[in-house]
Amino acid sequence: MMICTALVFFMHLGFAFLEIGLTRQKNTINILFKNIFIITIGLLLYYLVGFNLMYPGEFNGYLGSIVPGIAPPENGMTPDYASGGYTWWTDFLFQGMFAATAATIVSGAVAERIKIGPFMIFTIIYVGLIYPIAGSWKWGGGFLDELGFYDFAGSTLVHSVGGWAALVAVCALGPRIGKFKDGKPQAIPGHSIPLATAGVLILWLGWFGFNGGSVLSADPELTSLTLVTTCLAAAAGGVVAALVSFLKFKNLDLTMFLNGILGGLVGITAGADVMTPESAILIGAIAGALIVFAVSFIDRLRLDDPVGAIAVHLVCGMWGTLAVGIFSTNPDHTLYAQFIGVLCYAAICLVSAFLIFFVMKKTVGIRVSEKEELEGLDAHEHGMDAYPDFRLNEH
Amino acid sequence: MMICTALVFFMHLGFAFLEIGLTRQKNTINILFKNIFIITIGLLLYYLVGFNLMYPGEFNGYLGSIVPGIAPPENGMTPDYASGGYTWWTDFLFQGMFAATAATIVSGAVAERIKIGPFMIFTIIYVGLIYPIAGSWKWGGGFLDELGFYDFAGSTLVHSVGGWAALVAVCALGPRIGKFKDGKPQAIPGHSIPLATAGVLILWLGWFGFNGGSVLSADPELTSLTLVTTCLAAAAGGVVAALVSFLKFKNLDLTMFLNGILGGLVGITAGADVMTPESAILIGAIAGALIVFAVSFIDRLRLDDPVGAIAVHLVCGMWGTLAVGIFSTNPDHTLYAQFIGVLCYAAICLVSAFLIFFVMKKTVGIRVSEKEELEGLDAHEHGMDAYPDFRLNEH
Amino acid sequence: MMICTALVFFMHLGFAFLEIGLTRQKNTINILFKNIFIITIGLLLYYLVGFNLMYPGEFNGYLGSIVPGIAPPENGMTPDYASGGYTWWTDFLFQGMFAATAATIVSGAVAERIKIGPFMIFTIIYVGLIYPIAGSWKWGGGFLDELGFYDFAGSTLVHSVGGWAALVAVCALGPRIGKFKDGKPQAIPGHSIPLATAGVLILWLGWFGFNGGSVLSADPELTSLTLVTTCLAAAAGGVVAALVSFLKFKNLDLTMFLNGILGGLVGITAGADVMTPESAILIGAIAGALIVFAVSFIDRLRLDDPVGAIAVHLVCGMWGTLAVGIFSTNPDHTLYAQFIGVLCYAAICLVSAFLIFFVMKKTVGIRVSEKEELEGLDAHEHGMDAYPDFRLNEH
Repeated sequence: MMICTALVFFMHLGFAFLEIGLTRQKNTINILFKNIFIITIGLLLYYLVGFNLMYPGEFNGYLGSIVPGIAPPENGMTPDYASGGYTWWTDFLFQGMFAATAATIVSGAVAERIKIGPFMIFTIIYVGLIYPIAGSWKWGGGFLDELGFYDFAGSTLVHSVGGWAALVAVCALGPRIGKFKDGKPQAIPGHSIPLATAGVLILWLGWFGFNGGSVLSADPELTSLTLVTTCLAAAAGGVVAALVSFLKFKNLDLTMFLNGILGGLVGITAGADVMTPESAILIGAIAGALIVFAVSFIDRLRLDDPVGAIAVHLVCGMWGTLAVGIFSTNPDHTLYAQFIGVLCYAAICLVSAFLIFFVMKKTVGIRVSEKEELEGLDAHEHGMDAYPDFRLNEH
Repeated sequence: MMICTALVFFMHLGFAFLEIGLTRQKNTINILFKNIFIITIGLLLYYLVGFNLMYPGEFNGYLGSIVPGIAPPENGMTPDYASGGYTWWTDFLFQGMFAATAATIVSGAVAERIKIGPFMIFTIIYVGLIYPIAGSWKWGGGFLDELGFYDFAGSTLVHSVGGWAALVAVCALGPRIGKFKDGKPQAIPGHSIPLATAGVLILWLGWFGFNGGSVLSADPELTSLTLVTTCLAAAAGGVVAALVSFLKFKNLDLTMFLNGILGGLVGITAGADVMTPESAILIGAIAGALIVFAVSFIDRLRLDDPVGAIAVHLVCGMWGTLAVGIFSTNPDHTLYAQFIGVLCYAAICLVSAFLIFFVMKKTVGIRVSEKEELEGLDAHEHGMDAYPDFRLNEH
Repeated sequence: MMICTALVFFMHLGFAFLEIGLTRQKNTINILFKNIFIITIGLLLYYLVGFNLMYPGEFNGYLGSIVPGIAPPENGMTPDYASGGYTWWTDFLFQGMFAATAATIVSGAVAERIKIGPFMIFTIIYVGLIYPIAGSWKWGGGFLDELGFYDFAGSTLVHSVGGWAALVAVCALGPRIGKFKDGKPQAIPGHSIPLATAGVLILWLGWFGFNGGSVLSADPELTSLTLVTTCLAAAAGGVVAALVSFLKFKNLDLTMFLNGILGGLVGITAGADVMTPESAILIGAIAGALIVFAVSFIDRLRLDDPVGAIAVHLVCGMWGTLAVGIFSTNPDHTLYAQFIGVLCYAAICLVSAFLIFFVMKKTVGIRVSEKEELEGLDAHEHGMDAYPDFRLNEH
C-alpha cells in the first residue's frame, strides 16, 4: 500500500509531463506551477478537511465528519485498523494522493488561457470540498454504496469527477485564440512530444499503484489479477486507438496511441478487480475507439480541450463505469446501479463546477487578457521562461 | 514480484529515452511510436500465444502449448501456484514485460532508417513466436535446462536474443547515409544527452526489478545479494568503460560511461544470484572494457548501430553468460553448458531473424527512401514533429 | 527495504535533473558526468571501505573497521541479521545509496566552474572517508549516539554533511563570472525548468524511500506515520515558500516553490518518525520560509550557489535537526544534544572540506580557466554538447 501511494504520487509527474508536452512552450511554467500547487495544497486540504469529510462520520451517508484536522481512531496506528492490513495513516496518504488527481485533470483542459488565481480557488474548493463529499457517497459507505453502485478505483469517483469539471470549465472559458478558424478546428501542436510520451508511461506506471493499491490489501490473488486487467486494457486501448486513427486519418498518430492507452486505463479502473482478462481487453479496445471519436466530436462542438482530458477522463470514465454493469464477474453489479451512479456524479459535479466557475467568471474573471494569452502566461503570471538559457548549436 | 513487474515495465521508458537521446531529432516520433507499439502489442501477443508457448505444455521441452489465450491452472490464483509465493497472473505479467524487451533492443539498432511497417511485422513474429519458443528451452524447462545451462535473468534469453536480431537487422539494412565516409566511421550525434542519461538511470532502476524479480520469490537473502551484485557490476562497468575510453581517446566520454553501466548490468544478469560481490565487480569491469572495444570493432566492420545495442546487449550478454561458467558459486554451472547455450541461442536467433528480414527485404522492402531518411521519418511516416512548438528566447 | 533502496537510487536522477535544469546548457554534460561518477564510484568506495568504516568495528565509537572489502557477519544473509527483518546486503546497498548523496549535494553548488579532476578527488575522499567516519558517530553507535543526539534519516548526517562541504567549496571557488555586477547579484537562469521540476518530483518520490526505508523495518505503523509527516512537510514547505516569495517579490516563482518543497523534505528528515502531522506541517512551513530568506542572505554574502544547495541542505538540515529537540514526541530528545550534534558535524565537515579544497587549490587548482568557463565546460572537458542535433522548426 505504501509503495502504491508512492506510485500514485509519481503520477503527478506524469500529468505534468503530459500537459506541458501537449501545450505550447510559452505556457509551460504556468502549467508546472498549477500542478505543483495542486499536489501540495491538495495534500494539506485533504489533511485539514477532506479525509474526514469523505470517510464515515457524523452525517455518514451524505457527508463525513467536518472536524478539521485528522486524528487516528484508537486502532488506527496498527495494521488491524482495516481488514487489508494497512494503517490509518497509509489510508489517509493514499486517498490524499487520489484527491489531488481530480483537479489535475481539469488543469490540462483549461491550459493556456485560465487565470491562475481563479484556478487556485477552484482547486481549493473542488479538492477540499466537492471531491470528498462526492466520494463519500460511495467510498465513504454512502447511499450509492448501499444501492450497489461499484467503482473499484475511480473511473467515476476520480476521473469523471475531474472530467465533468473539465467540461464545465472548457465551456466557461471558451476556446484558445486561433483554435477555430471559420468554425474549423485547427491543430495547435505542443512543444515536446517526448515529454508527453514519458508522461503517459509514468501514468501507466502510476496505475500499477492506483489500481493495485485500490485492492486495499496485499491479497496477491486479487492484486495480480487487477494488474493484468489494467495492463491488458491499456495495451488494447492504445493499439485500437492507433488503428482506428490510422484507418480514419491514414497516418500513424503517436498522440492518439498515447491517449488510447490512457483511455484504456481509465476505462478499466472501475472494474479492474472483477473482470476476466478477455473482458479487460474488450473494455480497453472500446475505450481506445471511443477516444478517437470523442476527440473529433468535442472538436465539432467547438470545445477546446488542449490535452484531450474530456475524451480520456470523462468519456472513458463513464464507459468504464457502465462496463462494470455489463462485464463484471460479480452478479451483484447491475447496469442500473452503475447508470444511477454516473447520473449522480454528473449532477453534483456539473452543478458545483458550474457554480464555482460562474461566480468567478462574473466577479474576478477567469480568462487572461488577449495580450497575455498571445504572449504566453509564463511571461505575465510568472515572469519566467521555461527554457531561459536554451541555445542551438551551429550545424 | 508485482513491484518488480512495475519496475520492468518502467524500463520501457528508459529504453525510449536512451534511443531518442542518442539519435537525431527528426526521427524521434518514429522511435517513440515503435517503443509504444512494442509494449502494447507485446503484452497482447504474450497473452494470446507467448506465455503458453514458453511455459510447460504439450510439447514440453521444445515448445509449450499452442492454445491461444491464457487460463490459469487450478491453483494459479493463489500464491501456492509457485514456490516463490506469487500467483500465475503475476508470473504472466512479469514475463510479458520481459518479452517486449527483446524487440526494444532491436529498435535502437535499426533506428533512423527502417520502415515502420516491416518493423512492426518483425516485432509481432519475434516477440510472439521466436522469443517464447527460444525461452522455453531454458525457462520452460526445455532441453537446455536439462543440460545444466544457467541464465538467471536473461543475459542470453533476453539480451542476446535481442542482440542477435539487432546484428542481423543492422547487416540487412546497411548503415545510415553519412555514417561512413571513405570507409571511416563518422559520429552522428544524438539530440538529447540528458534524456539518454535519464534513460540509463531508469534502466538501472528497472534492473532492480529485472534481477530482483527474477529471484521469483521474496527470499530476502537471495534477493538482497542479487541487488548488491547488480549494482556493483553496473558501477564497475561504468567506471571501467569511462577509464578505458579516457586512456584510449583522452576525453571524458559520458556516452561511454553510460554504455559501460548498461554493459555491466547486462553482464551480471546471467548470474546475479550466484556471484560474490567481488566476482560481480570483476564481471562488470570486464563488460565495461568490452564495450569500448566492441563499439570500435563494430564500427570497423562498417556496421551502423546508432545506440550501441549490439555491443551492450549481444557482446556483454554473451560475456555474462559465459562468466557464469567461470565465476558461479554453484559448482553445477559449467563453462561447457554455458557455451552450448550461447550457441543454441545464436542459432535460433540468427536463423529466424535472417528469415524474417530477408523475406521482408525481398518483398516489401525494409528501408525507407533516401529522401525520407534525409528529411526524417517523423515527417514522412507520422506527419508530426517531436518539438513542434519549441522556440528560443532572444538572448 | 529493497524497494526503498531502489527509490533512493532513483533520487540521483532527481538530483541530476534539478542541477542541469537550473544551470546553463553549456555545462550540462559536465554535471551529468559528475553525477554518474558519484553514483558509480560512490558505490564501489562504500563497498571497499565506507561500510566498514561507518558501522561498528574495531574502533567503535569514533571509527569502524578499516578492513577493505565487505564480508557479511555469520547471520548477515538472513533477515534475522537486524531486528528490522532485512539482510546485511540490503543494509549495505541502502547505506551506499545514501553515501553518494552527500557528494551530489556539493555537485550542484560548485556547478559551472569547478575542474572535474579535483571534484572527482574530493568525491573520493569525502564519500570514501569523511562521510562514513562522521556517520559512525551517530549511526555507527558512536559518541553522539550515546549522547542522545537524534537524526532519523540524515538531516545532519547526509544533508548538512553535504551542505557544509558545499559552503566551503563555494567560498573556495568564488562566484561564476557575471554573477555579481557592482556587488549586486544577477540572475543566471538555467536551461530547463521542466527538467528541474521533474527533478524535484523524483526527489520527493525518492524521499518515500529515504525516510520510509530509514525506519529500517517494515513496521507499518511507524513507516506510514513517517510517510505522512514527510509528505505534509514537503507540501507545507512548498506552499509557504511560494507564499513568502509572492509577498516579497510579487510574482509566482516556481523555482522557489520547488526549493520550498525540498526544504520541507530536508527539514522533516531528522525527525520524521517522532513528529505529529501538525508538527510536521509546522517544521515544513518554517523550512519553506527559511529557504526564501536564506537564498537572499547567501546572495548578500556574495556567495554563488547556482542551485540553492546551501539554503536547502545546510540551512534546512540544521533547522530540522534542531526541530527534533523542540517537537519530538520522544522526551529523550533534547535541544542540547541536537545542538551538540550540529556543532560536531559542522566541525568535522568544515575542517575536512577546507583541507581538501585548500590543498587542491594550492596545488592542482580547482577552477577552470576564464575561457573554459565562458565557452562552457562541456566543450572543454568532454568535447561534447548536450543537445548536439537539436533543431528548430520553421514556425
